[in-house]
Amino acid sequence: MQFHTEVLKNGLKIIGETSPSARSTAIGFFVRTGSRDETPEVSGVSHFLEHMVFKGTPRRTALDVNRDFDRIGAHYNAFTSEENTVFHAAVLPEYLPHAVDILADILRPSLRGDDFDMEKNVIIEEIGMYEDQPTWSAYDHAKKTYFADHPLGNSILGTPDSIRALTRDQMHGYFERRYVAPNVTVACAGRFEWPELVALIEKQCGGWNGAPVGRQGIRETAGSGAFKVMNKDKVTQEHVILMASGPAADHPLRHAADTLALAIGDDSGSRLYWGLVDPGLAESADCSFHEYEGTGSFYTSFSCEPEQAQANLALVRSILSEVQHDGITEAELQQAKSKILSRVVRGSERPMGRMQAIGMAWTYLQQYRSVDDELEAFDAVTLKSIREVLDKYPIDRTTTLALGPLAEL
Amino acid sequence: MQFHTEVLKNGLKIIGETSPSARSTAIGFFVRTGSRDETPEVSGVSHFLEHMVFKGTPRRTALDVNRDFDRIGAHYNAFTSEENTVFHAAVLPEYLPHAVDILADILRPSLRGDDFDMEKNVIIEEIGMYEDQPTWSAYDHAKKTYFADHPLGNSILGTPDSIRALTRDQMHGYFERRYVAPNVTVACAGRFEWPELVALIEKQCGGWNGAPVGRQGIRETAGSGAFKVMNKDKVTQEHVILMASGPAADHPLRHAADTLALAIGDDSGSRLYWGLVDPGLAESADCSFHEYEGTGSFYTSFSCEPEQAQANLALVRSILSEVQHDGITEAELQQAKSKILSRVVRGSERPMGRMQAIGMAWTYLQQYRSVDDELEAFDAVTLKSIREVLDKYPIDRTTTLALGPLAEL
Repeated sequence: MQFHTEVLKNGLKIIGETSPSARSTAIGFFVRTGSRDETPEVSGVSHFLEHMVFKGTPRRTALDVNRDFDRIGAHYNAFTSEENTVFHAAVLPEYLPHAVDILADILRPSLRGDDFDMEKNVIIEEIGMYEDQPTWSAYDHAKKTYFADHPLGNSILGTPDSIRALTRDQMHGYFERRYVAPNVTVACAGRFEWPELVALIEKQCGGWNGAPVGRQGIRETAGSGAFKVMNKDKVTQEHVILMASGPAADHPLRHAADTLALAIGDDSGSRLYWGLVDPGLAESADCSFHEYEGTGSFYTSFSCEPEQAQANLALVRSILSEVQHDGITEAELQQAKSKILSRVVRGSERPMGRMQAIGMAWTYLQQYRSVDDELEAFDAVTLKSIREVLDKYPIDRTTTLALGPLAEL
Repeated sequence: MQFHTEVLKNGLKIIGETSPSARSTAIGFFVRTGSRDETPEVSGVSHFLEHMVFKGTPRRTALDVNRDFDRIGAHYNAFTSEENTVFHAAVLPEYLPHAVDILADILRPSLRGDDFDMEKNVIIEEIGMYEDQPTWSAYDHAKKTYFADHPLGNSILGTPDSIRALTRDQMHGYFERRYVAPNVTVACAGRFEWPELVALIEKQCGGWNGAPVGRQGIRETAGSGAFKVMNKDKVTQEHVILMASGPAADHPLRHAADTLALAIGDDSGSRLYWGLVDPGLAESADCSFHEYEGTGSFYTSFSCEPEQAQANLALVRSILSEVQHDGITEAELQQAKSKILSRVVRGSERPMGRMQAIGMAWTYLQQYRSVDDELEAFDAVTLKSIREVLDKYPIDRTTTLALGPLAEL
């Protein structure tokens, strides 16, 4: 494997990991923009814009976009998070030029008024669909409660009201500001020729606007500390999320934080699994670590019959304060490491996995991280570094959100 | 990549594809047994037995099985189909001996009476859960309607009645007959040392019973030709499946059949997509080809608002008879090929994908099929071979099952 990097004159970054033994190629356009970059008036615009990108350009109708991807057998998709909007495709190596042609083209969308109005309804329906999913809804509300006025609390989808009020011109303004060349990283992994890739991107994206753009409100937060119960009668199970502060995406303790979360709440063989799921006290229980620019957070959550919620909440709290007090055991550390190393390796076996990994590493660290770099970093986690995480980011200092049939908890 | 094969004295087959550039190893135990090998009295026993395999052995409790897999960070699972019961794990190369130790051990399960009684309830709940999923339920009933008295019509899960009536002794008898060494193939792919693998398997499985076992009722079928409407008021959409006959798993036309199904009903850019989904006439519409020992079948299905079902059925029939009459176009063939080649390549990039592929090829063909063999076979599909498929297996000679709010269609 070999790593390459290049910056176009307009500031667009290109990175690539060539792997001659691969049989396919994955390419992604990482736009450093998401819900945290939105003002309340345009809440949901990043995600809505992601949809609009597939609706056509001066050279392609929405139908053409679909047909052109299809013709080359591309496996393609996009997603929007708090901090990134990513468009990606995996193809056979001979179709990489076609994939670049389509992706670079759709990233300068026409944003036609008719399409905008039609897609608005699709987005509003999607919001309704997600709101009906208690797990997702609880997660969205927990973030809002924890982050409070921190921009990471902004909803990715927006609300039906914010979407309804959004105008095509507002979206166009947001696009013009945020989809500029210096805010885009193109990442490629698998089998391809690096000089050829650079030439392709240069040709298609060399003319993109090079005005720099920043990000507001990058700061740490320990969360609001609130305790909120949302009564939803239609939901049968009680969904409870306890959030706590953690290291940011560029913090040297992030691997230890990830390992700690796994030991506490992996979906098999963790403290929460043996404490709540295995004895049948909860339907599900887990803990995961999410890293962002400037801050990070631990999400500990469980869902169960409402009658069981009170006792489970006490149990989860006692598990968290036990961990805070005594840390985890050497056996737990080794088991969590085995799992995490196995996941890193399996996730790296496809160009799609590598493309995502190098794209994210470049976005957050301006650094190349090989598979071995990541394996070594996880392998280097010790009980001491886990202790450091807990000392800096007490996992039992939580903000809590419950959603379900209960009015009080 | 290098392929290896070995047969133990008791008839157990071992195959392996070593790939030095891989970073993980996948291993699977393929037992050639499934719902088609069941008599009505033990309907569902294969799938129930798959669950019981994880409940422990003389050396391990159910808890130990879970803990031991967990300790090595294994990504493990199992599935039961009409023809196969497969147990598999993906691990870091250094843990392959542990994975073999666990898998080989659990494949000689204790089938303890208490566990059997407890798991019975789990299975009956699982049947209820699946029955509530109209897509799955329609598929299960369509198979039953099409295959009629052919053993491939047997339900994989069984019924609550058949499971309730099943005794531990019946399961034990089934296990003793079907889980014999000559009916098992162990497949391994990724990074590993072949002689070491053979030694590990030999040590653990060399003492397994070597009594041979066959399979009854291997024959072609063109389906019952029935037209059945099942009224389910609780289901909101109408689910319609049209089945037709196709080539068997060892037939030279199977690649052409796969390609044809994709051109007709891939989930994007196919005849059914443009005819039904894109214009919003149906929620979903697709066509897929399933191959079995002795026969194969095409599943064409759609789901839509009940008011639209009649018109959609007429539309799907006209699409099928148009294809039967005129075949597909060269452009459709090329597009379907691009997609299929891309899928084969992406599916081959992980040891897990290769392990499944070589295991299935050995089970059905007693043949090694490299990725290139498969790519070449799909690349060799022509309009002429598609025509041959249609002439031998008319895709418009259908058996139809509708499930949903309608009483008639």
